[in-house]
Amino acid sequence: MSTSAADPEGATRDAFLGGRLHLWQPRRGYRAGVDAVLLAAAVPAEAGQAVLELGCGVGAAALCLAARVPGLHVTGVEIQPDYAALAHRNAEETGLALEVVEADLAHMPKALRQRSFDLVMMNPPYFDPALGTGSADAGRDTALRGATPATTWIDAGVRRLAPKGRLVMIQRIERLPEILALLDDRLGSVTVVPLAPRDGRAAHLFLLSAKKGGRARFRLAPPLVLHAAASHERDGEDYSPPVAAVLRDGAPLDIWA
Amino acid sequence: MSTSAADPEGATRDAFLGGRLHLWQPRRGYRAGVDAVLLAAAVPAEAGQAVLELGCGVGAAALCLAARVPGLHVTGVEIQPDYAALAHRNAEETGLALEVVEADLAHMPKALRQRSFDLVMMNPPYFDPALGTGSADAGRDTALRGATPATTWIDAGVRRLAPKGRLVMIQRIERLPEILALLDDRLGSVTVVPLAPRDGRAAHLFLLSAKKGGRARFRLAPPLVLHAAASHERDGEDYSPPVAAVLRDGAPLDIWA
Repeated sequence: MSTSAADPEGATRDAFLGGRLHLWQPRRGYRAGVDAVLLAAAVPAEAGQAVLELGCGVGAAALCLAARVPGLHVTGVEIQPDYAALAHRNAEETGLALEVVEADLAHMPKALRQRSFDLVMMNPPYFDPALGTGSADAGRDTALRGATPATTWIDAGVRRLAPKGRLVMIQRIERLPEILALLDDRLGSVTVVPLAPRDGRAAHLFLLSAKKGGRARFRLAPPLVLHAAASHERDGEDYSPPVAAVLRDGAPLDIWA
Repeated sequence: MSTSAADPEGATRDAFLGGRLHLWQPRRGYRAGVDAVLLAAAVPAEAGQAVLELGCGVGAAALCLAARVPGLHVTGVEIQPDYAALAHRNAEETGLALEVVEADLAHMPKALRQRSFDLVMMNPPYFDPALGTGSADAGRDTALRGATPATTWIDAGVRRLAPKGRLVMIQRIERLPEILALLDDRLGSVTVVPLAPRDGRAAHLFLLSAKKGGRARFRLAPPLVLHAAASHERDGEDYSPPVAAVLRDGAPLDIWA
């Protein structure tokens, strides 16, 4: 990672995918991490498809996806102007095809509401706005404890999905019951992949895939284990082979089988 | 397992817990198996406590639990008279303290509704009565695709739980979203343990624990793997160590940590 002096707001330019991608992020506030990169790796997009990310922030997940799969049409919606501006800048500087729409996902512009997408990806805020204490940084607070309820995220995503389109989400495991309850009859073929910090440990996150009009039964896949070693001596240096392949080599996650 | 000629109805007397327990079951119809034994092993009951099993069948799970934990007061409710009669006979012949109540769990006798229990265990029918084809055997059909909906099972269980009491259930993984949605505000501290046939395979069943009045967040534990080997050459002979300890030695499952 490197810090730029060129940005008066104090943004930093950080490396993703083993240096394949460099993205501007606010120095303070919500900073994209492993979650965004895993979400992008879990989206089974193919060249020519249209992908929508709800709450794209500075575009980390959307751009990781665009970097991995050439020929995608990726659109990101972001409510916070400063994050949307950095997403736009990141798209321009990386030369990747990301269209950034600064909008509230609960009230998308008509032009966007008239389009449909093969895939919708999202990393909704991890904490309920009614719970816990807020962050001193308003941008980080919106990203972590957004005022938009999860039901609105999912509904907005389903509405924008084409028939047979797929929703892919990453979220904290504590919210799995709530999220499953929000998947209404428009969605089916739900698969959940637990993410566990280490082998034999309880999951802390999950990835979820659901298909619009899907009919297959609910499936709980084996956990994806993030860290290989039992100890945690060098943080970030002990990823399991599939996760290291994602984070360092930009590989996809083949988890929805 | 051995077959008895003493029962004109054609019941068989089968070994459980490595031969520690022998129970009568109908030769045709629903026959208790590994699921019932795993459910009993997952109930963290202690001497002196009162345990209720809803839909106890011939008493396999309830008696496995009573055999493992001395000093319990175990009650089983069973709607089908022939299964309830075998449960009563099994309790008498094993000398284990199982009280059998022949009743519809949706309309339990007043005497039972006036009691509360430290633990409620259940293995509700695995299939929705609205789905699939029925079994030619009416008893097996009720056990597998019972007419009583899952919400009634859970509500009946929660009503009978003492404050801080614990509900323990085993069920097919396909029904996890439906079951989680049925756990209302009376229950919390929900933990799900996926049961996978082999390491790295999707779960096919789950065990669930929820506490009446519990406040802890939802937890997804690592999977309990049933079979140790990658192949399946000798069915039933390749159980993983913790499952073999349950099935052969009557050990408990320590999974709710």
